[in-house]
Amino acid sequence: MNGADSLADTLLHNGIDVCFANPGTSEMHFVAALDRKPEMRCILGLFEGVVTGAADGYARMADKPAATLLHLGPGLANGLANLHNARRAGTPLVNIVGDHATYHKQYDAPLQSDIEELARPMSHWVHTSANAGAVSRDAAAAIEAARTAPGQVATLILPADAAWSETNADIATARRPEVPVVADAAIAAAVAALRNGRRTLLLVGGMALRAGPLETASRIAQATGARLLAPQANGRMERGAGRVALERVIYRIDSALADLQDVEQVILVSAKAPVGFFAYPGKPGSMLPGDCAVLTLSELGEDGPDALARLAEALSIGRDVRALLNAPGAPSTPTGALTPAAIAQAVGALMPEGAIVVDESVTSGFGFFTHTHQAAPHDFLQLTGGAIGMGLPATAGAAIACPGRKVIGLQADGSGMYTLQALWTHAREKLDIVTIIYANRSYAILRDELKNVGAGEPGENARAMLDLDRPNLDWVRLAQGMGVEAGRATDADGFVTLLKAALRGQGPFLIEAVI
Amino acid sequence: MNGADSLADTLLHNGIDVCFANPGTSEMHFVAALDRKPEMRCILGLFEGVVTGAADGYARMADKPAATLLHLGPGLANGLANLHNARRAGTPLVNIVGDHATYHKQYDAPLQSDIEELARPMSHWVHTSANAGAVSRDAAAAIEAARTAPGQVATLILPADAAWSETNADIATARRPEVPVVADAAIAAAVAALRNGRRTLLLVGGMALRAGPLETASRIAQATGARLLAPQANGRMERGAGRVALERVIYRIDSALADLQDVEQVILVSAKAPVGFFAYPGKPGSMLPGDCAVLTLSELGEDGPDALARLAEALSIGRDVRALLNAPGAPSTPTGALTPAAIAQAVGALMPEGAIVVDESVTSGFGFFTHTHQAAPHDFLQLTGGAIGMGLPATAGAAIACPGRKVIGLQADGSGMYTLQALWTHAREKLDIVTIIYANRSYAILRDELKNVGAGEPGENARAMLDLDRPNLDWVRLAQGMGVEAGRATDADGFVTLLKAALRGQGPFLIEAVI
Repeated sequence: MNGADSLADTLLHNGIDVCFANPGTSEMHFVAALDRKPEMRCILGLFEGVVTGAADGYARMADKPAATLLHLGPGLANGLANLHNARRAGTPLVNIVGDHATYHKQYDAPLQSDIEELARPMSHWVHTSANAGAVSRDAAAAIEAARTAPGQVATLILPADAAWSETNADIATARRPEVPVVADAAIAAAVAALRNGRRTLLLVGGMALRAGPLETASRIAQATGARLLAPQANGRMERGAGRVALERVIYRIDSALADLQDVEQVILVSAKAPVGFFAYPGKPGSMLPGDCAVLTLSELGEDGPDALARLAEALSIGRDVRALLNAPGAPSTPTGALTPAAIAQAVGALMPEGAIVVDESVTSGFGFFTHTHQAAPHDFLQLTGGAIGMGLPATAGAAIACPGRKVIGLQADGSGMYTLQALWTHAREKLDIVTIIYANRSYAILRDELKNVGAGEPGENARAMLDLDRPNLDWVRLAQGMGVEAGRATDADGFVTLLKAALRGQGPFLIEAVI
Repeated sequence: MNGADSLADTLLHNGIDVCFANPGTSEMHFVAALDRKPEMRCILGLFEGVVTGAADGYARMADKPAATLLHLGPGLANGLANLHNARRAGTPLVNIVGDHATYHKQYDAPLQSDIEELARPMSHWVHTSANAGAVSRDAAAAIEAARTAPGQVATLILPADAAWSETNADIATARRPEVPVVADAAIAAAVAALRNGRRTLLLVGGMALRAGPLETASRIAQATGARLLAPQANGRMERGAGRVALERVIYRIDSALADLQDVEQVILVSAKAPVGFFAYPGKPGSMLPGDCAVLTLSELGEDGPDALARLAEALSIGRDVRALLNAPGAPSTPTGALTPAAIAQAVGALMPEGAIVVDESVTSGFGFFTHTHQAAPHDFLQLTGGAIGMGLPATAGAAIACPGRKVIGLQADGSGMYTLQALWTHAREKLDIVTIIYANRSYAILRDELKNVGAGEPGENARAMLDLDRPNLDWVRLAQGMGVEAGRATDADGFVTLLKAALRGQGPFLIEAVI
């Protein structure tokens, strides 16, 4: 077999059976190899940002990596923004990037660039296979790197001659790196802190946002009086009726500072201390009070659920201490004007149990939690790295990871335009996704920020860069142009009608919600 | 004033009065500064690939750089593919990339990444401004770098606090680096070569592809018997009736090798020796015969037109030696089936004098020259770096550089999908662009390459990655969804009717040519 076959076999042997792809000529031998492996599901994205964003969404829900297939430096470059988000989410992901044949590099052909240098900023692990014989063990090393907690982005560069040359190397097995457990001292320090009488914030992220460990965290909070909170943006959290009642750190710096002003100590559980998404003149970078003590129960790459269980035990929390769970009680459907709140209320009212909600609604989604704590239990996936254009692709990946579950995309219009090509993948793969476009026809968050800068009302040049009108985007036509059925709502009743129909149906549907 | 004002003033002072932008919060002070400068034309792209591709197209036609405005690492990453093309075209371009405030980096906020490392592979010059006082001289250095022949990509990173802090630094003037002229020895060597009786190829690129120097090159070829040829892909060439009859190096490796098999020596004029776009097993990387001598008359960054003039003089070529020019004689309009040849014939028949043709038609455009040598004189801009997604943005940039000239985009469907957001910019800026989509509904070039690999007929997985059908893209709806009028043609007569109407009208129009 050749190196390309060796790579495909290694992926399959190690449980990677989905490949999100946009190949080029230099990857044609790998395409031919995949063509010989019907066990591999190959999914085309019409732009590489779709490919990497889908791989991110897939792995968040499948708890295992997908592979991507990208074409040389520019193809990788197009996928970097969503790799950045994946990296911030702690997503396991294996990028396969084709390169020119090793002996062709001397010619500096038109598509040549420094792929390793491009990959490094957004990858935890980067390696170029030297030859066909090295491909399988390199791929296994990539998979191991991807599996390393909390989940890493591994980029394997495959020169064309490493793909097409023959090899009889064995197919390598990737290890599953153990997730390190925290030291007893960290548990003891947290116990002491929770008993020292200070106002404590328990900030819980990563795998500790799944339903089980969150209940443990909630019981700890209930027993000790600590406040429980999730980071502002998270790869995946389990929430809704019957699950822990949980809020997140607020995005806007002034509100966040006010909200956290009384915190005397924070205990981090697989989470980072909260900082401003951006810096603002005269405002602090950390969201915590200056004299707030910061303890780390578990680092991002450590076993947070285990640490919480041991902490609960060390605190001798009795069975009588219950987690604070959301009671069932989905909201009623809204009527009247179509606002972000009305959309949240409608989604909260109508979403089925087991739904997967992918949130890239930016400003429009800031109030989403208020209306959905008591909605049917669901997964909630967020934009973790701030690189817009993750939403539409990630819904595709989530739908592929979880057939039979309804996926709901909460999508800002400006962000949606970044990777709208994903809608075609929704259609081709007949994915069960309802996309809700919050059509406010501006980069609303930037209009806010311009005000914060003290620039007053935007003039012509600022409006030229912040508004999405003149002309308005017609999302119904855009969706239909890629084979996705779509409708437009301009009031809450119309939105509810469309959402009901979309949730009842199978396959992709897009609702342009004019707000 | 603050650093942002200083930057805007420096750009304007040095003749940069167009800024293609997609800003974010960290660039808001620069947006506010631009809002105070109505002399700057700010043009929004709904994705950064649109921004950089437009800046490339603009500078190719304006012969001076535009500025871009990009948001942090991910915003830059999204623009890298078209920076790669610009770098390969020898395009002058000044990227402004915002960054977090310097003191905010300690927090590793969600959007943080290594911007310099991301920029370096696709930039000739990269620098981060240390503070507001340094911004103007840094910007002038960036402009000088961009102006350095043959044109370079300069990336200036602007930390938010360098933008918002006050400065009283002077506004710096950027030098215009002289284009080095070639040494007399290079002229003498070329004279000797052209007189040694060998079969000679004169390969002419860069600024030597403008009408004047091309005539000199043609006269040299006519006088010496050398064969005149252009590289396969070029940033800009002036062609059509009354201009030099010129072919390009062939893209497909086998055809190129056959075409060049008799060449005994090549003289490079601001061009690189032709190499395979990709490597293929068992085929050479260079397109020249193994024993072909390679002489360089002028390097890419040297003054090719001057070198040609001096070479003609040194060869004592008399006034009686005329350049070989295309006679007027545009083709008639086609009828019958709609094929790439019919499209070329129709465009050749109907395009007005001074049209700007931007070619990203990939396989569909391989025969375009055949039908357009005698068309009205026009500029021809190509995909120079092979990173698809340059076409629709570059037409926008060209139209902004040259109001009053008709821009015609020859656009493959697969490539067009990469940056289709550019159509919205066509609509918002009311640009006079006719976009022709070659709707063959596949990555046709890759279907060819899969055959070359010897993989035979594509199976399910290969088709999943190479075909763009299931569902077909509806380009008419996609265009209308972004405010661009559009129509579909399925035969040559229908295409001619639509093209005539589009060329007669003003403003953007898209024709989906189903081939």
